[in-house]
Amino acid sequence: MAFEYLTNLPLDRARRDYIELLINNGMGPRAETVPVSQAAGRMTAEAVYASICSPHYAASAMDGIALLAKDSFGATESTPVTLRPGKFTVVDTGDPLPDGCDAVIMIEDIVENSDGSVTIHSAAAPWQHIRQIGEDICAGEMIIGSFMELTPAAIGAMIAGGVGEVKVIKRPRVGIIPTGDEIIPPCANPEPGQILEFNSAIFSSMLKSWGAEPVTYPIVPDKYDMILHALEMALSQCDMVLLNAGSSAGRDDCSAKAIAEAGQVLYHGIAIKPGKPAILGCKDDKPILGVPGYPVSGIIVIEELLKPIIEHCTGKAAAREDRAEAVLTRPVVSGLKYQEFVRVRLGFVGDKLIASPLNRGSGVVSSFMKADGILEIPQGQEGYEAGQRVSVRLLTEKSRPSNTLVVIGSHDPLLDELADMMHRDDRKIYMSSSHVGSMGGIMALKRGEAHAAGCHLLDPETGIYNLSFIKRYFPNGGIRLIRCVGRQQGLMVQKGNPLGLNGFEDVANDGVRYVNRQKGSGTRILADYLCSKANIDKASIYGYDREELTHTSVAIQIAAGSADAGMGIYSAARLYDLDFLPVCIEEYDLLIPDFAYDTPMVRRMLDTLKSPEFHARLSAMGGYTLEGIGEEISL
Amino acid sequence: MAFEYLTNLPLDRARRDYIELLINNGMGPRAETVPVSQAAGRMTAEAVYASICSPHYAASAMDGIALLAKDSFGATESTPVTLRPGKFTVVDTGDPLPDGCDAVIMIEDIVENSDGSVTIHSAAAPWQHIRQIGEDICAGEMIIGSFMELTPAAIGAMIAGGVGEVKVIKRPRVGIIPTGDEIIPPCANPEPGQILEFNSAIFSSMLKSWGAEPVTYPIVPDKYDMILHALEMALSQCDMVLLNAGSSAGRDDCSAKAIAEAGQVLYHGIAIKPGKPAILGCKDDKPILGVPGYPVSGIIVIEELLKPIIEHCTGKAAAREDRAEAVLTRPVVSGLKYQEFVRVRLGFVGDKLIASPLNRGSGVVSSFMKADGILEIPQGQEGYEAGQRVSVRLLTEKSRPSNTLVVIGSHDPLLDELADMMHRDDRKIYMSSSHVGSMGGIMALKRGEAHAAGCHLLDPETGIYNLSFIKRYFPNGGIRLIRCVGRQQGLMVQKGNPLGLNGFEDVANDGVRYVNRQKGSGTRILADYLCSKANIDKASIYGYDREELTHTSVAIQIAAGSADAGMGIYSAARLYDLDFLPVCIEEYDLLIPDFAYDTPMVRRMLDTLKSPEFHARLSAMGGYTLEGIGEEISL
Repeated sequence: MAFEYLTNLPLDRARRDYIELLINNGMGPRAETVPVSQAAGRMTAEAVYASICSPHYAASAMDGIALLAKDSFGATESTPVTLRPGKFTVVDTGDPLPDGCDAVIMIEDIVENSDGSVTIHSAAAPWQHIRQIGEDICAGEMIIGSFMELTPAAIGAMIAGGVGEVKVIKRPRVGIIPTGDEIIPPCANPEPGQILEFNSAIFSSMLKSWGAEPVTYPIVPDKYDMILHALEMALSQCDMVLLNAGSSAGRDDCSAKAIAEAGQVLYHGIAIKPGKPAILGCKDDKPILGVPGYPVSGIIVIEELLKPIIEHCTGKAAAREDRAEAVLTRPVVSGLKYQEFVRVRLGFVGDKLIASPLNRGSGVVSSFMKADGILEIPQGQEGYEAGQRVSVRLLTEKSRPSNTLVVIGSHDPLLDELADMMHRDDRKIYMSSSHVGSMGGIMALKRGEAHAAGCHLLDPETGIYNLSFIKRYFPNGGIRLIRCVGRQQGLMVQKGNPLGLNGFEDVANDGVRYVNRQKGSGTRILADYLCSKANIDKASIYGYDREELTHTSVAIQIAAGSADAGMGIYSAARLYDLDFLPVCIEEYDLLIPDFAYDTPMVRRMLDTLKSPEFHARLSAMGGYTLEGIGEEISL
Repeated sequence: MAFEYLTNLPLDRARRDYIELLINNGMGPRAETVPVSQAAGRMTAEAVYASICSPHYAASAMDGIALLAKDSFGATESTPVTLRPGKFTVVDTGDPLPDGCDAVIMIEDIVENSDGSVTIHSAAAPWQHIRQIGEDICAGEMIIGSFMELTPAAIGAMIAGGVGEVKVIKRPRVGIIPTGDEIIPPCANPEPGQILEFNSAIFSSMLKSWGAEPVTYPIVPDKYDMILHALEMALSQCDMVLLNAGSSAGRDDCSAKAIAEAGQVLYHGIAIKPGKPAILGCKDDKPILGVPGYPVSGIIVIEELLKPIIEHCTGKAAAREDRAEAVLTRPVVSGLKYQEFVRVRLGFVGDKLIASPLNRGSGVVSSFMKADGILEIPQGQEGYEAGQRVSVRLLTEKSRPSNTLVVIGSHDPLLDELADMMHRDDRKIYMSSSHVGSMGGIMALKRGEAHAAGCHLLDPETGIYNLSFIKRYFPNGGIRLIRCVGRQQGLMVQKGNPLGLNGFEDVANDGVRYVNRQKGSGTRILADYLCSKANIDKASIYGYDREELTHTSVAIQIAAGSADAGMGIYSAARLYDLDFLPVCIEEYDLLIPDFAYDTPMVRRMLDTLKSPEFHARLSAMGGYTLEGIGEEISL
């Protein structure tokens, strides 16, 4: 039996059919009995009735004396009644009502006589100042209905009602089977070709947060028999199974074959991106989901297909989706064939909610971590244009975009340190920084999409940074330039400089593999300038078109030996222990539009820039000069 | 050293001083190191940096061949290039890039020759179709900053970045010490005078939900030395301690003395109700909170005083409080001396959000379970009038009041069964039922405060139920009457009828202790009618002024032996195994205003009324006739 991508079913249809099949096969909420003390946060499977009353005995509600009310009848200010010892009992609040008594008189309202008797000056009404049996809860009464969440107070009420155990909805047990010859358990020193198994950790935490109980099985090699065996074992122990395929071609064929053998395959292939190789299978009432190996694909498949199943089985109504209208910063192109899920970062800039699409690679787990929302592009639609208003499903709390400082432009690790300190000092503030190069930052500011932009643009005519670009792109002002740091730029080469390069002028030498930054970045503009100054034909530099987006990633390629040289800042070279041939000190400054300048977030950023702790962090990274940091440069 | 309620400090002031003192003593977030796999949902204590790149090796991003790009230079459609075996390697997606290669050509773009060589028709650009080292995460880069919550994706990113352990904010360990001679562990058969210890279970679940780690100690008797010893032990093992005093007088004096001995007492007595005997103490940086014994007092004290401390120590910003404007159904009177916290139920009726105050007794834990919100009455204010608009702090999700069917009026246990079935069948729907008697229900409907009211009002002139009352109170219509059940009403007496009562006419006999329902209830009106019919002077009935709010609680008093007789319905008598002298079958119907009649919630209620399962539940309870149930009665 050979499987391919047999189907390309629309998600809605596939999900509906799948859940319908499972429910027809008997899938649904299951109950289990747990001690009340461990039931907080769980959901009742059936109504809970009190077995005893609370309070379960009549008690004094005051400090005073208990008596038979009749014995006090007729007592007034002018005709007091005196009770002999034996006709009353001294009681404290909470004491059980003594036999034969049906009223309590407060201690303040009695006169104690020396012979042990008491005198009262007004009659007691039967049952006054008595806490009646069942005042709180009556035996036999329903304490809480079915499918209700057990709050702390409900736990208390059940114990008070004499309930020791409670039937709650069982947490569905979900087996996760990681597969793949190349997959190894998490460690700090994997060999080339080995892939750390982190999907189970991601999936487990997602499942837990939805009220399921994940069970992660050991990694299974890409062998059909072993996968089938693992699947059958998981099916015998769990209510649902996730079979996480390796990421290379042919892997999910093996999964599909094993699922078909152990149970049945309903669909193989869903019209979503990422996530299209998903396999929707089951054995009787137990879902078996074949999940693609790339983490982002897996997250989408589990969110879209397993979450509604878990919601069905936990009895929890799906939480209302929070959505927001946002303006897209960049075009997003989508194939017509798939419904596409694009992760975006969000931030309020001025009065607009801005959505910036993140890296769409399905292996890029960090982009999921940074995402504030998901933009869905329906199947059959080509995508959205920059500036278009789109509806975004929110992944973070609704208030977060309003408290997010949006920094778009040139990359420097100092931005991460800045974000860390700002958030630590004011937990409500977040920073979202996108690395699109200095020119990208200027363009974002012009479109009103950022609160700040890192910028280091050299004007080759004057040798002065940034000013001439600001004059050209912001002829009508509206922008301020804040001095940030002087950065040591230079040529990064492998440790020990094995090719013996003397400087940038040697990068076109035969046998030198260069790695570049992307067009529009200040460092690329600097490299172009250095080429023209040294009269080097860019086409003669091997790898000049090989583009990385950050200083750090240029440094890595050199450290890993896949390139010999690239321009970057000293701190990146130092991080990877590379040799560094200094070229110049450039001015890395921050552009801030007038409308953002007086906001609390920007104020906090400027204060942090000037703080001694920040300066100490920069010193530790190396290669920065701090003169005038945080000061406004007059334009 | 003798303590009394030494202080009556405003809450805001007390809280501010207390937290300030604790912070000055060194209290604050603490860090602990945990394995990344167990860190989901925790908060980082410091920024986390990647120790390896992800991917950590250059890999093929396609199925195809890896080669040195240079070897393909010059290849075009008209000038193809053929590579001998050895000059290329076949690779699958994800395979590490072989040494000496710097490009991948897709399998679709090559021609395989019979001699093992391949022919290509266009040149490869260096680094094409290669997933670069660090594409996702670069070693040394900040993965996540400090005081950020670890989402599932963040867990994945940390594992991918080679991070095995992470410093997170420690969950503060909170010791809970229950005290009191009368307190016993939860059980189903306590003796009179024994109080079940359910406070720890309530407090523990609250603390857990705020991110703390509760530790419950064994119950300590009311002995100063033992309390002091338990306190000192808890202080040596925990970051914070709750000392839960018994509820009777003098108990918190003992607590205060022990806290002063083990550490110090800042304030004893806060101007809040419930909760005024709270003790704010500490030992160095460890808070010691003396919590009153009544559960509701304890909940308020812990919410108002411990929660902000835990928020400080967990680094979690306090969640924004959800509030709503609501119209009060009943006046709420408050003493000027205290800031008062009143629990309310909420429901949208028509276009008004209605807030009904719940039982304010501080021992009534079930009222906390039923509460949707808390109304605060500031110190120095006398309270609010019925109909006044007030601001309520929400305890349940914001959408819940819109989905709550508000039923106010006569009590019958069938309402709980109805609520249970409705919510089970549609999880979004809730019912809030208040037992204020038939007349109370009519008044609530007239004020527009309910969707439905249970009603069984006998017109003594005609012997007909409900109709004449509807004509009198709703002369302009706007209301419908839905037939519900016939209910067997009768005199409930102790098992075996030891006093040998023949019927209601005997309740004024000497030695008979009666227990009544509250004025305005249909059963009270029936009892009044029976008195006048039998020519009984109500004042001659012992206990006629003793009022209970439900059939069930009347039955309990008889079952417990504190009363001999009371009017009520058969199902209540049966629940407590009482003897029952039938008096009449009354019509218990539902009044529904026109505006509510066509809403989905009321439709669902009517459908449920007519369902066989509901009829089966009523049969099991006994004493009901079901003819015409759910039909509209023409007015």
